[in-house]
Amino acid sequence: MEPIVLASGSIRRHEYFKTLHLPFSIMVPGIDEDNKDMLPPEDLAKSLAKRKIEAVIKNLSNRIPRWICSADTLISLDGAVIGKSKNREEAKETLVKLAGRSHNVITAIALFNGRERKTDCRLNISAVRFAKLQEKEIEWYLDTCEWQGSAGAYKVQGLAACFIDRIEGSYHSIAGFPVHEFYKMLMDNGYDYS
Amino acid sequence: MEPIVLASGSIRRHEYFKTLHLPFSIMVPGIDEDNKDMLPPEDLAKSLAKRKIEAVIKNLSNRIPRWICSADTLISLDGAVIGKSKNREEAKETLVKLAGRSHNVITAIALFNGRERKTDCRLNISAVRFAKLQEKEIEWYLDTCEWQGSAGAYKVQGLAACFIDRIEGSYHSIAGFPVHEFYKMLMDNGYDYS
Repeated sequence: MEPIVLASGSIRRHEYFKTLHLPFSIMVPGIDEDNKDMLPPEDLAKSLAKRKIEAVIKNLSNRIPRWICSADTLISLDGAVIGKSKNREEAKETLVKLAGRSHNVITAIALFNGRERKTDCRLNISAVRFAKLQEKEIEWYLDTCEWQGSAGAYKVQGLAACFIDRIEGSYHSIAGFPVHEFYKMLMDNGYDYS
Repeated sequence: MEPIVLASGSIRRHEYFKTLHLPFSIMVPGIDEDNKDMLPPEDLAKSLAKRKIEAVIKNLSNRIPRWICSADTLISLDGAVIGKSKNREEAKETLVKLAGRSHNVITAIALFNGRERKTDCRLNISAVRFAKLQEKEIEWYLDTCEWQGSAGAYKVQGLAACFIDRIEGSYHSIAGFPVHEFYKMLMDNGYDYS
């Protein structure tokens, strides 16, 4: 199988590539993730995924790889993006907002096809419903420190599973890598996955 | 935290207990899983989970543990249970049936409370939708051997993720352990999870 450059510093995404038995190398794209253009969350996720691809191409000026993959995941509540929390108080505010209701997790996944010099970019939108939470449950969760570095102040693949009573869509997309959409994209672009 | 006897030989379920940082020991219950009574899938799952608890209690005749947990997962298509495949041909027939549509995954989870000598048993029913599959995709999947030992001839936590375009309910329940329901059950039974 042809090697793929994975434009991501996320260990979780590296693990997905290993699970899929794909040959890959890692290049962490240095992009500014601030939403200066105030795009809607769906457009922002796609824009960030594409910019990660572009950053890697720019870094590799002399040699265009055959394949580059990137992804970007955002949490959206009532149309607004919920980012990572700066401190415990901010994380608590976020969890209070998420408790007892559903929010959307938007993941854009992009595949650069070096032969055609084209980038395919697709979106998965999945819903996550949190159960109602008591304050002591939120404090217990904050003590686990899973909120650190996590958009929405929780990790779906961690202890937050105790609080999530339903999802609709793709679990893997919520965890940051929409496996089905990526597989379809590989197939549609003629990648020989066998 | 009080130790829990996990009445399950499933490595996946052992991993869930580790992720939840629960102190536990393993006792594999030897029960006959055949559906001789031809129960509806929901009742069968509950009956099997309870029988696993009873089998462990019977084995420990002199000493009743404080807590025992068991679970049972079934795949249901049009009201009928789809079991494990005996061979590759049977697995192929199952995957052809599942492709391009949704089926239900039913997991019963039981918790025996040794102080009250009572078993609490709860059910999660989640839907899994497979994308349409070409015969070569099914053959590719069969080559991975994930069908072996798996109800429904697939592993949601494995390469079958390439084919699953949507779930509704609990990913962990589909993988065999409904984390949220289990957490709720622990809380409702007064287990000190901290």
